[in-house]
Amino acid sequence: MSEPSLKDAVAPGKPGLARSPLAVDLPEFGVIAGVRLAIGRAGFYRHDRPDLVLMAFDAGSVVGGVFTRHAVGSAPVDWCKAALQASGGRVRALVCNAGCANAFTGAPGAEAARQTADAAAGALNAVETEVMVASTGVIGVVLDAERIVAQMDHLTAGLEADRWAEAAQAIMTTDTFPKGAVAECEIDGAPVRLAGICKGSGMIAPNMATMLAFLATDAALSHEIIQELLATTVGDTFNAVTVDGDRSTNDTCLLVATGKAQHGAVKEAADPRLQNFKAALRQVMLSLAQQLIRDGEGATKFVKVTVSGAASDASAAKIARTICESPLVKTAIAGEDANWGRIVMAVGRADEPVDRDKLSIGFGSLAAAADGKVATTYDETAMSAYMRGKELEISVDVGIGVGRADMWTCDLTKGYIAINGDYRS
Amino acid sequence: MSEPSLKDAVAPGKPGLARSPLAVDLPEFGVIAGVRLAIGRAGFYRHDRPDLVLMAFDAGSVVGGVFTRHAVGSAPVDWCKAALQASGGRVRALVCNAGCANAFTGAPGAEAARQTADAAAGALNAVETEVMVASTGVIGVVLDAERIVAQMDHLTAGLEADRWAEAAQAIMTTDTFPKGAVAECEIDGAPVRLAGICKGSGMIAPNMATMLAFLATDAALSHEIIQELLATTVGDTFNAVTVDGDRSTNDTCLLVATGKAQHGAVKEAADPRLQNFKAALRQVMLSLAQQLIRDGEGATKFVKVTVSGAASDASAAKIARTICESPLVKTAIAGEDANWGRIVMAVGRADEPVDRDKLSIGFGSLAAAADGKVATTYDETAMSAYMRGKELEISVDVGIGVGRADMWTCDLTKGYIAINGDYRS
Repeated sequence: MSEPSLKDAVAPGKPGLARSPLAVDLPEFGVIAGVRLAIGRAGFYRHDRPDLVLMAFDAGSVVGGVFTRHAVGSAPVDWCKAALQASGGRVRALVCNAGCANAFTGAPGAEAARQTADAAAGALNAVETEVMVASTGVIGVVLDAERIVAQMDHLTAGLEADRWAEAAQAIMTTDTFPKGAVAECEIDGAPVRLAGICKGSGMIAPNMATMLAFLATDAALSHEIIQELLATTVGDTFNAVTVDGDRSTNDTCLLVATGKAQHGAVKEAADPRLQNFKAALRQVMLSLAQQLIRDGEGATKFVKVTVSGAASDASAAKIARTICESPLVKTAIAGEDANWGRIVMAVGRADEPVDRDKLSIGFGSLAAAADGKVATTYDETAMSAYMRGKELEISVDVGIGVGRADMWTCDLTKGYIAINGDYRS
Repeated sequence: MSEPSLKDAVAPGKPGLARSPLAVDLPEFGVIAGVRLAIGRAGFYRHDRPDLVLMAFDAGSVVGGVFTRHAVGSAPVDWCKAALQASGGRVRALVCNAGCANAFTGAPGAEAARQTADAAAGALNAVETEVMVASTGVIGVVLDAERIVAQMDHLTAGLEADRWAEAAQAIMTTDTFPKGAVAECEIDGAPVRLAGICKGSGMIAPNMATMLAFLATDAALSHEIIQELLATTVGDTFNAVTVDGDRSTNDTCLLVATGKAQHGAVKEAADPRLQNFKAALRQVMLSLAQQLIRDGEGATKFVKVTVSGAASDASAAKIARTICESPLVKTAIAGEDANWGRIVMAVGRADEPVDRDKLSIGFGSLAAAADGKVATTYDETAMSAYMRGKELEISVDVGIGVGRADMWTCDLTKGYIAINGDYRS
């Protein structure tokens, strides 16, 4: 089957959506030894677009995964959790489709996830539980696994090492740009590569967002180490971004290690030889997480919120999240207003310890409030100029302790309402 | 000083805001024996409007109060809490201004609140701590108490029993209609009246909302009883409505009892003779609370969310709040879409016990989902017709226990963004 247009396919997100003004370009992915990818069209959309990705991993690969804590997890999330436990972290494939989230679909949805894994296992001579599955798109509709099964021969025939960029596009829903990041580092003196793609926080009318992130490295690390590194790094990367506070049923982040890199054996996550790798992993995950914000629905501003002086890091994170998810703060940012009053409001409703009379708030290097009242150096003109920028930093010190957290968000604009509310005519 | 236009003043909210499509008319307030009101113009706004209310209570009146749990409470909230404690609940006056919230204003703000109380106390031959104060409007600006002090003679000269409707207008900020409710009931066979006014969830660009509610009754009840009745009734009335989840620094709800009604002595809140009064109090508070939602910024739909089958009433309330504050749910309602997938999402992220396979969701009398999947009787045409209504009821059963809660909210529209984000040119 010839597919002349696949490698330069246009972004397959919701037709008519303009590319985010905060978008960044995909990196040159190169390859991760032991990983091959293929793209297909299962037809989950009415318009013609790639909507299916198969990633194949050489024998000996291991995977770590973190999943939504949503109480109504999807069938693919259920599958991955169970398969990871059954396989002890061995992995041979990942199948991801866009256009149907297979969430809230009961027993038929679970069977569809199993059928998908079974088809990939058969095609790659693996066992079912060595296949991860991920779905994104419409909720409440059972995945039509037959559409995926029918594409499996085509997918396995198309597996190549350099199709990361296409895969980043094929998993998009209402994303306005594809998202990816790569890094190179060393373990024990040997070169190691990391690559990742993700999608979100798009939305398929009339349904819900899903964050999916798939990372791979050629590092030779055990499932246990990969799992630990992933779990500890997700906290201040993917879990430190928020568009609207609405958590998906399908959130999935997987990290596969193929073991092709030529470094010495590493026995534990605490091994100091992993320091460089940990930094690279964090860099890739943070870049991907920030790209989600850069594609936040209707976003026109990329905002970093730093909270310091809190009772603990967890307290700082809770305050930062409250600021980042406050509709009043987010609309003020959209309005290019350094409305520190709304930030005071958000800080106060986080229900964390705060010393009102030591509270200070800054925008970039400009002081807005200090010691519990408007800053003596407050300069409306300079502040207004700062707020017209596309990338903003808001810092808040709550005057209690040394707890600290960063979080990233975007503004709340009419574009968000249009994307999420205008689909009914 | 002549004030020919005061009694039929137009709504003094933000100029140019259209009256909410969900608005209701003020009731005929009549009078509450022992309560007199006056309206003034302190000039906290650039446009000419009443912005000051004095309520005077006959000697023997008592007050109960509940206030924002916001960690950065305003100076007037601090004042009221301290004064209530010092006076043992005796009250002779309330002074409320719009146009300046006197929040996040440090020691000068506290002094301004005290000066305001002092002026009213002097004019009414009371002591400072028998005066409640409330402010709403711009945050971070110290209240110019001199403007209020200068109006005090005019205010005391204008005190009349039948000025409730004017008072409801004078405390508005970006409210698009004035809010009030009355009820009549009996205690021990004697007639008792209740009246209340409130304002919110308006906003003064570029600043924050404040919910203020003032109720009065001629019932002859102690401070302790009034405080207990108010505190227990606020939970499923004012605390059961949410526009955007953003809590104010200034939220204040006061209930004054003047003791003019001719019923027998009541010694405790549990007295069965208070049953009728409790129902009337709840009715007035719920009406006022629902009027806040009817004036929610940009609101076009009035939405009641009922959660049942939860592990406890508190668990049900948390789930209901998560649904009511989900931007994805609120934009779907704006789009007139019965998007039960987004409700599933919100239920799941409430971090409360839920049985996914028993979850059911209804819109009015129409079933959307049952037993963890789309309802077999789901009718898209009927559902679409229902969603076009202005008043909607969403019911969710989470299949765990008998916990139950109602909450009210509105939709999230471009109007909300315009009101809160468009003020910068």
